[in-house]
Amino acid sequence: MNERELITFIAGLSPSGHNQDLLLAIGDDCAVVRKTREQVLLYSTDTLIEKVHFDLAWHPPYLLGRKAVSVNVSDVAAMGGQPRYLLFSLGLPKGFDEDWARELVRGVINACDEYGCTLVGGDTVASPAGITLGLTVVGEMLEQEVIYRSGAREGDMVLVSGPLGSAAAGLALCRQGYGNDERFARLCQAHLNPSARVNLGKMLAASGLVHAMMDLSDGLATDLGHVCRAGRLSAILFRDQLPAIPVLSDAAQLLDVDPVQWMIGGGEDYELLVTVAPSATKKLQEKVAGSGYVLYPVGRMIAGDKGTIRLAPSEGAGQASAIEVEFSGYDHFNEG
Amino acid sequence: MNERELITFIAGLSPSGHNQDLLLAIGDDCAVVRKTREQVLLYSTDTLIEKVHFDLAWHPPYLLGRKAVSVNVSDVAAMGGQPRYLLFSLGLPKGFDEDWARELVRGVINACDEYGCTLVGGDTVASPAGITLGLTVVGEMLEQEVIYRSGAREGDMVLVSGPLGSAAAGLALCRQGYGNDERFARLCQAHLNPSARVNLGKMLAASGLVHAMMDLSDGLATDLGHVCRAGRLSAILFRDQLPAIPVLSDAAQLLDVDPVQWMIGGGEDYELLVTVAPSATKKLQEKVAGSGYVLYPVGRMIAGDKGTIRLAPSEGAGQASAIEVEFSGYDHFNEG
Repeated sequence: MNERELITFIAGLSPSGHNQDLLLAIGDDCAVVRKTREQVLLYSTDTLIEKVHFDLAWHPPYLLGRKAVSVNVSDVAAMGGQPRYLLFSLGLPKGFDEDWARELVRGVINACDEYGCTLVGGDTVASPAGITLGLTVVGEMLEQEVIYRSGAREGDMVLVSGPLGSAAAGLALCRQGYGNDERFARLCQAHLNPSARVNLGKMLAASGLVHAMMDLSDGLATDLGHVCRAGRLSAILFRDQLPAIPVLSDAAQLLDVDPVQWMIGGGEDYELLVTVAPSATKKLQEKVAGSGYVLYPVGRMIAGDKGTIRLAPSEGAGQASAIEVEFSGYDHFNEG
Repeated sequence: MNERELITFIAGLSPSGHNQDLLLAIGDDCAVVRKTREQVLLYSTDTLIEKVHFDLAWHPPYLLGRKAVSVNVSDVAAMGGQPRYLLFSLGLPKGFDEDWARELVRGVINACDEYGCTLVGGDTVASPAGITLGLTVVGEMLEQEVIYRSGAREGDMVLVSGPLGSAAAGLALCRQGYGNDERFARLCQAHLNPSARVNLGKMLAASGLVHAMMDLSDGLATDLGHVCRAGRLSAILFRDQLPAIPVLSDAAQLLDVDPVQWMIGGGEDYELLVTVAPSATKKLQEKVAGSGYVLYPVGRMIAGDKGTIRLAPSEGAGQASAIEVEFSGYDHFNEG
């Protein structure tokens, strides 16, 4: 049983449809439930476990606290909502380092402030075998503006909101002992202290131009795969259009990695992925440019209900030159 | 730094008051936020960690799934609300037992159904060092009916909604290898499969007669201590009025334990604790009796802003015969 099978099992048992206020349960970045006639509430939860999701050897507590919030809040951004409240559970071993814990909490509060949400509750428990962080975010937005994963249409452009692969490169660099190397500071920061695209998400939702949206938590290929399956479509990516910061290739060379692996397979960039009609793409790009955001076209939604992701050298190269990208997604139980 | 100091530190950093919709953040069973003009939403989160909160040696997965939900939902019952939605995070080691996981999830869903709430989301993660369960419940109720911990008044009667100490005795029995002993089945069930008092909580909230309420998760003395400190009062308990099921004394004898320790110090009964004006006590008891609920008077709120809990042999024995009960509460980081 892998992670997806377990989630499918849970979703299959979980009743739906008998509650008119429940607009969407399991299957998107957030659950969506009615608040008022016009407004909905968004709910999402995340758990981060030491040695699986973070490593104390290189993750300063303040940044870890910030990251935990960003990871969770990013799910609200991915629907286009405003994060309002956060619950935070902290599992610590007995005899934990008090200064470390205070810094972690300061990071949590700081990130909440930045995203405009308030820490309203939580739980502290003993966790003998390592630190665990549990977060639940409550978001809010207009029902008519919610952007689901499932809305992609054939022919849509696929756009991403920022450079790809930075966080994966940063993690690899930290692992290899380059965490304090000045040259790679931006990559390491992308891993240690990512930003959730809350303001951009709200702008995209309000534009009315976006068909499908999600955040890039597990990597472009995996996450685009979710959008494809939810919309019964496939997609093609154009390698020469994948955005990356220049130093990514230096890091790839240093660590002898194909940078495209990081860009397509690396998780935790927390950029937004959207699909938009080709005719609306320029308008959308201009709409967000005024606020300093860039939307990079990286591919297209194409026919094919298997959710296949293909990679072509360029848009002009044609589908014949594309290779199928094999990504089953990060399976927490079978990989690592 | 103990658990209370850490929570105080977190609550001190967490801003409050700048959000008109936030009626109560940290400090009660649930956070309370406005939904509509009349209605509020309740939020609470709980984390259960293997070997700290449960032991797989004697806890069947179906009952563990049920218990995790009951523990979390009980916080909504403790305000008088109706649980509506649940988020469930499951941390499992690689190579986990699939049948075990399915039974756990069935227990979660079954309990959600029983309490009238719907599982709407969650998270599955690898947890190398042991199983972790994270739950967040969303409740709903009328703002004017919310019962806070802080409302107790001097002279109030203290009542509990059921026998005390059963869960603590059940845990001790399971630990000592008496988990399958027929004589103690009710005690072991109290530990393995507690009930959240959702319907009773709603009834108490609707009555308008209750001044303060919380659920008994950490034990009568500890939880009543929270009510005392929140209301700047103290309390006195009457030993001969503490309710227990008859077999509790048999178990205490078998394990050579003072049963009063279980009744006052033992956690996880998940009964409700309320304070009520003496003049309204009989009326409240009659109100709930029609639905099969019993409210047992066990003590009184008295003057003294230090939150001291004293134990007298009986109500008539007078305060002079009372001894101070020393319970600092279950501290997850320093005890166990």
